[in-house]
Amino acid sequence: MTRIHDDPEDFAIRALEGFAALHPRIVRPVPNGVLRATATPKGKVALVIGGGSGHYPAFLGYVGPGIADAAVAGDVFASPSTAAIARVGRLSDRGGGVVFAFGNYAGDVLNFGAAAELSAEGIDARTFAVTDDVASAELGERHKRRGVAGDVPVFKIAGAAAEEGRDIDAVMAVMEKTNARTVSIGVAFEGCTLPGAGEPLFHVKKGRMGVGLGIHGEPGIGEIDAPDAAGLADLLVEKLLPERPEGWNGRAAVILNGLGATKYEELFVLWTHIAKRLGSEGMTLVEPECGELVTSLDMAGCSLTITFLDDELETLWRAPADTAACRKGHVGDRAPAEPLAETVEAEHGFPKGNQDSRKSGELILLVLRDLREALEAAEDELGRIDAVAGDGDHGAGMRRGASAAASRAEQAVSAGAGARSVLAAAGEAWADRAGGTSGAIWGLILGGFASALSDTQRMSRGQVAAGAEAARERVMRLGGAKPGDKTLVDALVPMVEAIRRASAADADAATIWREAADAAEKAAEETKALTPKLGRARPLAERSKGHPDAGAVSLALAARTIARRLADAD
Amino acid sequence: MTRIHDDPEDFAIRALEGFAALHPRIVRPVPNGVLRATATPKGKVALVIGGGSGHYPAFLGYVGPGIADAAVAGDVFASPSTAAIARVGRLSDRGGGVVFAFGNYAGDVLNFGAAAELSAEGIDARTFAVTDDVASAELGERHKRRGVAGDVPVFKIAGAAAEEGRDIDAVMAVMEKTNARTVSIGVAFEGCTLPGAGEPLFHVKKGRMGVGLGIHGEPGIGEIDAPDAAGLADLLVEKLLPERPEGWNGRAAVILNGLGATKYEELFVLWTHIAKRLGSEGMTLVEPECGELVTSLDMAGCSLTITFLDDELETLWRAPADTAACRKGHVGDRAPAEPLAETVEAEHGFPKGNQDSRKSGELILLVLRDLREALEAAEDELGRIDAVAGDGDHGAGMRRGASAAASRAEQAVSAGAGARSVLAAAGEAWADRAGGTSGAIWGLILGGFASALSDTQRMSRGQVAAGAEAARERVMRLGGAKPGDKTLVDALVPMVEAIRRASAADADAATIWREAADAAEKAAEETKALTPKLGRARPLAERSKGHPDAGAVSLALAARTIARRLADAD
Repeated sequence: MTRIHDDPEDFAIRALEGFAALHPRIVRPVPNGVLRATATPKGKVALVIGGGSGHYPAFLGYVGPGIADAAVAGDVFASPSTAAIARVGRLSDRGGGVVFAFGNYAGDVLNFGAAAELSAEGIDARTFAVTDDVASAELGERHKRRGVAGDVPVFKIAGAAAEEGRDIDAVMAVMEKTNARTVSIGVAFEGCTLPGAGEPLFHVKKGRMGVGLGIHGEPGIGEIDAPDAAGLADLLVEKLLPERPEGWNGRAAVILNGLGATKYEELFVLWTHIAKRLGSEGMTLVEPECGELVTSLDMAGCSLTITFLDDELETLWRAPADTAACRKGHVGDRAPAEPLAETVEAEHGFPKGNQDSRKSGELILLVLRDLREALEAAEDELGRIDAVAGDGDHGAGMRRGASAAASRAEQAVSAGAGARSVLAAAGEAWADRAGGTSGAIWGLILGGFASALSDTQRMSRGQVAAGAEAARERVMRLGGAKPGDKTLVDALVPMVEAIRRASAADADAATIWREAADAAEKAAEETKALTPKLGRARPLAERSKGHPDAGAVSLALAARTIARRLADAD
Repeated sequence: MTRIHDDPEDFAIRALEGFAALHPRIVRPVPNGVLRATATPKGKVALVIGGGSGHYPAFLGYVGPGIADAAVAGDVFASPSTAAIARVGRLSDRGGGVVFAFGNYAGDVLNFGAAAELSAEGIDARTFAVTDDVASAELGERHKRRGVAGDVPVFKIAGAAAEEGRDIDAVMAVMEKTNARTVSIGVAFEGCTLPGAGEPLFHVKKGRMGVGLGIHGEPGIGEIDAPDAAGLADLLVEKLLPERPEGWNGRAAVILNGLGATKYEELFVLWTHIAKRLGSEGMTLVEPECGELVTSLDMAGCSLTITFLDDELETLWRAPADTAACRKGHVGDRAPAEPLAETVEAEHGFPKGNQDSRKSGELILLVLRDLREALEAAEDELGRIDAVAGDGDHGAGMRRGASAAASRAEQAVSAGAGARSVLAAAGEAWADRAGGTSGAIWGLILGGFASALSDTQRMSRGQVAAGAEAARERVMRLGGAKPGDKTLVDALVPMVEAIRRASAADADAATIWREAADAAEKAAEETKALTPKLGRARPLAERSKGHPDAGAVSLALAARTIARRLADAD
């Protein structure tokens, strides 16, 4: 279990701070991430990697010449926020564009995807989700697979291609090829314990072994009696060999990865069998790796990854690298990077709004304070609802998000910001502090509304209606959920429609939001998310009809809170 | 716990094999160890490190340009055998002498010390025991301290000095200086589990923390409620700061080391506090390290090591290195090493003995077979006696040793070897397979007897008496125990005296050994080793008067077995 920490909520931030302090030769810290400390040429494609914390050396340990230009770190096992990713992306760009690369998890897809809207600022930003875990989906649905230790060869090879000076299309192409030829399978003997938690995320019975579990304890494909080392080697190899591509030359980059509490000597013992078995299949192992490359805190278990090389990939796999966790060959002497071109915005630096817009900003602040109070009161109840089908942290995330949003709005209003800036800043703060998928979604909602407002006009019904539609569009495009998927989208769509209708009918603000709240509440009630059958992460098909979706309930609660404030204001 | 293994008895050998297979660029395997794969200049001092397995990256991970020339690996948590160490030392020598460096544990002191008798072969062999663990003895008894993660700076700095081409006296001097300026303290949250064992070596209650425990679970100096990260940093720093040397320049190499299940992010969090605290003491941290440098399988806990530098040590600490676990700077391109000058002796390569001596060799084989049978029968009983005051593995070790010795003697006899070669080979096999301190002692005893025999003469009473004295001399000199310490020495001394006396009185062989057995049995009974009060490792002072020492009992049993065989032979 994780035993060394201060306030568990600060764990990831502190760990990042400690890492950066240890490696000034290689990295320099920025909020929620690190950049290379060494110079890169103008025009180089920037590879920005990231994801939740708790997986070191992923992701911070792979920043440096030959691999990534930067990494963004979220809370433990939670995606970094859109704002944090976008900031690191902006700071990394050298004019050649930014490739955001990460493992395929909902929160990361959402936040990195939203951050890639940097393209609107003239930065060519692309995203790439690694999908190597054969246990998480069949080959036919490869795009649904999770990303595990396959992150390492995909980042390494793409990083080497970027280092060579290839353009962004070429880097994306080699990344796509590497990912398509990379497969992994993991086993677990015991779950890890999050900082501050009293119990592991999951348990495996003594003498048993979970096969195919994800690095956050996602469900596997079975549980068996733990085999001996020879038997384990056979099991791992046999899950991967069937995915050998046609016409492959027999050469492979192979990684045997410990998840945290399965130690080096055990991995070396296992390696003797794996190397023998792969050799007997005619495979040539090219610079194999055996150690801890993508961990899950102190989870007991290991994974095997194979990248089926070709000549191009082999050259890139062997290319020099100099990062905290991966050194190969000799990258040559590197000059220190120039001081950052963009300084991180000052805490209170907001554009001033005019008087009309500031008045609207004050109203937004009142609403956000109400929301903070309402979500604080509802935290336990939202947690209980979420625990039925999720991990039970929805209430805590909403409380953190609303509280951060209200505080940030207070700063903005004090600094004389207009409506648009107040709400935009609040949305970024919400996403930043709430974390996870729901934090990202709320960042998109507030940001969507803000996009239709102005710093020089009083907020209008038309703006609110346009903002609602922008919010819906962003959430659906980046979040990927459709109506009927039993998510917040089921409540968002009718809420936005109610706003549009009432606004078109010239209703007053209080009426618009009352009708919005009515629509959202009705829809939330109908989501009826289900009772769990399995462990922590449950596919939709296994939910029962007993409970509404926690995200939809939160949205309805927010709409009702706004309606009450506007009714009072009348 | 350790879960991945085949036969637990082969764990360390297999792990070594896997490690060597993974790093052909850096190391090449030899029996029980690895040598550098790259060439070193003639005349370079060879640094040979080693100890028990289960501590990776110690020791194998520190072999390569800039640090060690070779490493020797024993069984898990057990010293490598004298023969294995001597073989690796011989293969490493480039004419500049060999420095054997290891942590200060009884078994390692004994085996590396005995291996240093290579000096008799014209190789200048020295030994150095690292003593950095402040919890294991007061500063005034620094030579009694255990070696923990302080191994790393001591090996690194001595290795850099050897790499520069310093001579063996200079390397020993810088090693002495580094060790004298290196201090460590560790804490543990939970013990590790040996391969094949069902329970950890020790437990720490949930929410509690053992302070000062050794890396094999040796007793600490207290147990407290586990503090938060800031409190832990203070505790660790405060145990070490008092040992700052006078006139020190304020610059330090600092290592925060995870023992296995305490993971990277936890160490980074802790590091923020340690760095701040050391900074506030005016300390400048030079290339600090934070990660897993000397582990104890999956033990939960960490240790802090400080080497108080001076200009010389700082230059050596910063010097380039290229090993599996430690890379610094750039060592330059290295040519592969020449093929080994000395090939490892063939399995059955014994010098032929003449007919008289072969006849004595056959008698020795009969005695060794009897011993194998007797010790197999006594295994459980010896284990029970040993468990009172030790770790209960004495019976198993004696069985393994006697069995290996008998098998090896069979090979030697079949190959026509004489008495000296048969017994010498048996002694090496015993030490090799039995492991631990008692294995080393029995290797010394058999080797001592063998040293007085000949391959060209029938074994005589005079030779046996001289052999007994040689055995006693080697055991006492290298083992360091005196009569009255309640060890095997208490039985060995009167046994050797009885042999000398009976032999001088021209008694026949059966009488000599009957009197030897009588003396040993009487003395063994009088050792009366004591009942345990604490955990696993118990100082002599805490033994009760209830039980004889297991080692003394084994020796008496062996003497009686020999006496019976000789009586039958009459």
